[in-house]
Amino acid sequence: MLSSRIGILGGGQLGLMLLQAAVDWNLDIHVLDPDAEAPCRKIAPHFTQGSLQDFDTVYNFGKDLDVITIEIEKVNVEALEALEKEGKKVYPQPSVIRQIQDKRIQKQFYAEKQLPTAEFILTENREDVSNYISFLPAFHKLGKDGYDGRGVQRLTSADDLDKAFDKPGLLEKAVPFEKELAVIVARNAKGEMETFPTVEMVFHPEHNLVEYLFAPAEISEEVNAKAQEIARKTAESFQIVGLLAVELFLTPEGEVLINEVAPRPHNSGHHTIRANATSQYEQHWRAILNLPLGSTHAYGPSAMVNLLGEDGYEGPAVYEGMEKLLATPEVFPFLYWKALTKPFRKMGHITIMDADIASLKAKADFVKNNIKVISHKTK
Amino acid sequence: MLSSRIGILGGGQLGLMLLQAAVDWNLDIHVLDPDAEAPCRKIAPHFTQGSLQDFDTVYNFGKDLDVITIEIEKVNVEALEALEKEGKKVYPQPSVIRQIQDKRIQKQFYAEKQLPTAEFILTENREDVSNYISFLPAFHKLGKDGYDGRGVQRLTSADDLDKAFDKPGLLEKAVPFEKELAVIVARNAKGEMETFPTVEMVFHPEHNLVEYLFAPAEISEEVNAKAQEIARKTAESFQIVGLLAVELFLTPEGEVLINEVAPRPHNSGHHTIRANATSQYEQHWRAILNLPLGSTHAYGPSAMVNLLGEDGYEGPAVYEGMEKLLATPEVFPFLYWKALTKPFRKMGHITIMDADIASLKAKADFVKNNIKVISHKTK
Repeated sequence: MLSSRIGILGGGQLGLMLLQAAVDWNLDIHVLDPDAEAPCRKIAPHFTQGSLQDFDTVYNFGKDLDVITIEIEKVNVEALEALEKEGKKVYPQPSVIRQIQDKRIQKQFYAEKQLPTAEFILTENREDVSNYISFLPAFHKLGKDGYDGRGVQRLTSADDLDKAFDKPGLLEKAVPFEKELAVIVARNAKGEMETFPTVEMVFHPEHNLVEYLFAPAEISEEVNAKAQEIARKTAESFQIVGLLAVELFLTPEGEVLINEVAPRPHNSGHHTIRANATSQYEQHWRAILNLPLGSTHAYGPSAMVNLLGEDGYEGPAVYEGMEKLLATPEVFPFLYWKALTKPFRKMGHITIMDADIASLKAKADFVKNNIKVISHKTK
Repeated sequence: MLSSRIGILGGGQLGLMLLQAAVDWNLDIHVLDPDAEAPCRKIAPHFTQGSLQDFDTVYNFGKDLDVITIEIEKVNVEALEALEKEGKKVYPQPSVIRQIQDKRIQKQFYAEKQLPTAEFILTENREDVSNYISFLPAFHKLGKDGYDGRGVQRLTSADDLDKAFDKPGLLEKAVPFEKELAVIVARNAKGEMETFPTVEMVFHPEHNLVEYLFAPAEISEEVNAKAQEIARKTAESFQIVGLLAVELFLTPEGEVLINEVAPRPHNSGHHTIRANATSQYEQHWRAILNLPLGSTHAYGPSAMVNLLGEDGYEGPAVYEGMEKLLATPEVFPFLYWKALTKPFRKMGHITIMDADIASLKAKADFVKNNIKVISHKTK
């Protein structure tokens, strides 16, 4: 399987980290991305510039390859289905991408498979939403094309109705939660599964913002077992081949609910490059090449901070504070080969390790306060 | 420093691992290698095919770069000196490469700096060697151009004189030794130094062959302190900027002697990619970019097995047993992007980790016995 010709749809940072992991096995990788300056451009063994959403482009890209995978869900699934019919191995399977691309189908799938998730109502358009005022507060989610926080609106009362999407979507009950957790599962074509340890998103004590990711999550053994079990059951229900990142809510009552899933490497697994025996990226290759899955054993507690473009700056990226970070033991910045910064653009992440938890958290705070992505051209 | 234009002379496996480590920091790397199919070819951001030993080629390669480094010592040092004079940062410094390229100068340097090494006599040609029969048994080493075991002959008595080199070289007393150790030191331009934990080469109990590398070395605290101290002192004596791999002999009397050194990443540090907080490759970048050096803390004991082309096979490489290896927890094969195998060619290495030492050694044996690089075209 190591000599397969492999394609990745998408050449962003997840693709970059997949390429880095593939160096160990000499994987012959072809990357397709619409952006000539995509993060993967300079180090991909083969790079094709082209649309991920155009049937012909995706089909032609894949037709001389053996295995095709994705690092972003917004791709032309019809082309992937055509390639699958011709005997190409397409992982995750196009049918799974289709189910997950549409949040309406995704939610119905959980209901059908009795996987725990917040209550929801399907809505057809904005007017339809007005029929469910008593269901608020709720999140109105666009069925398709939501991405990275876009396509979600919180509706508290009838006054917010103008914020509702005028397209097919769903209302999801706003559940109070104590923690946001995530579990990444890998599953190969033989049906073997491995999960990574449960992680948690740590929120700022005052602002309602994710401050950093922390692994392993500080939760009871019981909650952890529940989270791991739900993640495995979800991956198995989808029969996915590849990675499934399962984002979860932990309610104050100790209930664990699925928030949403991603059928690919995920932001909540970047730290595994440094902290775990097998990274999520290597595990993705193992899963889609139908190889034995690797040990997900963690060598110690870790944290991860996203490095976002500072508000107010747009232009060639300058990383202020890198030297301070590099001078701190076991602090590892990873930059995404993006020449230009924009406010809140994901420019990199920083992994932090420390055997001592208090010191780990102190280092995470230090990191957050001491690095900034700016530009000498202000916006 | 992260935005420097960086050049590597040599595009072999060490260059490949340097490139992989450079992904984290978006380093803009240019690679020069005479072989159009060099391991680095496919993933280097920039690749130039050309001789490493031709003045003009090396000079022209370096003249538009900011920082130039090597992954092999056999390069045109005059061109590097010219580049250094023009203000390029050339690390390791050309003067250090010159000292190390010639084993005669290297040995005299140890004597002058009072660094412990086996007794030696400089010889001019084969006839000259015959003057020192009473000094045998000894190793006759070629001054220049010895590499990877070539350029060394063991002379036991006058009968072996025809094996001596008829060029400038040196006779080195054959010291009995208990273990071969190695310490990799990093030093940046500020003079900061960090060493990696001492490792040992484990020999086959019957054949006199290195079986695998083991980290940390199983030696007394006293011997370890001596090895670390000698390595630091050697790096400081050379005033090297970059990595210095110091290979050492441990004698039955507990004496630690320098065998030889390499001013670059080294075979004895491959395991640091998986086992240590900072790998030797990342540490090399930190050192030559004058950044703070990283923690060399090991997350646990590890072993490393070289993957050599099986004797009797020459042609397109086939890796027999990869799946068995991948099914063993914490066994990580790394292949060198070499399409063709040859007897004893370095085709890759395998890193093995295990918190339990007995189990680590058992896994190293399992690995050695279960992977083979062959070709379906026999020699």
